[in-house]
Amino acid sequence: MIQLVILGSGNMANAILTSCLKIDVEIFGIYSKNKKHSSALAAKFNIPYFNKIDQIPTNADLYFLCINDDAITEVANNLPVMGGLVVHCSGLKPISVLAKQQNQAVFWPIESIDKTSFTNFKNTPICIEANSEENYRIIEAFADRLSKNIQKINSLERQYLHLAATMTNNFSNHLIALAKNELDLHQLDYTILKHLLTKAINDSFNFEPSQIQTGPAIRNDLSTIQKHLSLIKNNNTKNLYEIMSKSILEFKQNYHA
Amino acid sequence: MIQLVILGSGNMANAILTSCLKIDVEIFGIYSKNKKHSSALAAKFNIPYFNKIDQIPTNADLYFLCINDDAITEVANNLPVMGGLVVHCSGLKPISVLAKQQNQAVFWPIESIDKTSFTNFKNTPICIEANSEENYRIIEAFADRLSKNIQKINSLERQYLHLAATMTNNFSNHLIALAKNELDLHQLDYTILKHLLTKAINDSFNFEPSQIQTGPAIRNDLSTIQKHLSLIKNNNTKNLYEIMSKSILEFKQNYHA
Repeated sequence: MIQLVILGSGNMANAILTSCLKIDVEIFGIYSKNKKHSSALAAKFNIPYFNKIDQIPTNADLYFLCINDDAITEVANNLPVMGGLVVHCSGLKPISVLAKQQNQAVFWPIESIDKTSFTNFKNTPICIEANSEENYRIIEAFADRLSKNIQKINSLERQYLHLAATMTNNFSNHLIALAKNELDLHQLDYTILKHLLTKAINDSFNFEPSQIQTGPAIRNDLSTIQKHLSLIKNNNTKNLYEIMSKSILEFKQNYHA
Repeated sequence: MIQLVILGSGNMANAILTSCLKIDVEIFGIYSKNKKHSSALAAKFNIPYFNKIDQIPTNADLYFLCINDDAITEVANNLPVMGGLVVHCSGLKPISVLAKQQNQAVFWPIESIDKTSFTNFKNTPICIEANSEENYRIIEAFADRLSKNIQKINSLERQYLHLAATMTNNFSNHLIALAKNELDLHQLDYTILKHLLTKAINDSFNFEPSQIQTGPAIRNDLSTIQKHLSLIKNNNTKNLYEIMSKSILEFKQNYHA
């Protein structure tokens, strides 16, 4: 049976531990400097926790570094060189931050992971990479048990996917927050937009997004744009509306004329 | 049986005619100055077309003005005062642009309507308004046959919904177009993001969007932001990334501190 150690006690640690409940693996325990978080997670999953790096078992097959980007290199360097595969879960950091370790891999689920709502990785694209074919087979075999959608993605490619995920996921949510804020001022329920948005996202992936762009900006419909700007209360939102509109027109002119 | 005239020959005219195929109504015909479009639509639905305003039957129950915002007032003024209900389909124009007519209504589906892919309004929120209770009952009875989701929305409210629909639908599609453009430069398939985006949109409507904001901007994670900016090829996209990131942080500080 495959044996795991989890390093870190945040959302990713929780997600991997939750996913492992459904597959046949042995969790040796969880390491974190944050005693409160790691003991809570250890209690939740009924596994040991370690607060000192020299308490970490050295005979596990997989070491999952579920920690902030900034701390990965430090933790990978503080670990003794393990026989097992040392894996980080960052979208942006290259595999080379694990350089001290002999066996290196990356496991990056393209998913916004929340501690309370996470259920599983079944439909999540998981981007994997390793520093040897043998190590690739090990991380692939593990990822395969969690998700139907495994993608072989190298460090260079992964950072562009991380950028694109941020631009679409985080920024779209912000647009909805800003739109909701404007509607709240007039006691209007923003959920009326859900039908439109759900269809828009589907369409953006079923057609070429630049070709199905609609709205006043792409038509250069200045009277609608001016009317909209006059309605917006929040100056920050007003500014953003103008810049997005200019960007839509500019993109059309320069990329799909 | 209820009797309709359609004015206009664009996407909205096509959508209403398509929807009417499934319900028991009589289409008197279609009016448009654009002979090519109106004759094509008339042939498609096997109905008469009129190119002159004095050819329009005066005894219909409903006159649907499926025309550009800028032309609604002109067409409503050029029409003789009809006994039937004159309806416009604009999200942004107030009902008062129909002032010359005795019986006025608005029928605005919150949907991005495309001539080739339109199927029906069954799940589309349709915002309706009329200038009297009697006229409201007429447009409501009609809308009720096309959609399960009828919303009583006045002209003032409707314009804010139109603004919010533009900000979310059109701008999200643009973000996806920009992200896809960056991925294209590295031969990466953007559809890998679909799972993430679909979940993000659902979450934005299941939770308070500002409370579930994730990503480097909300954490003020400057090293990730700088790294992302260094990866973006398109200067326009780079500029937009910076402004969106500032806006996310600003919104957090001022609205949900």
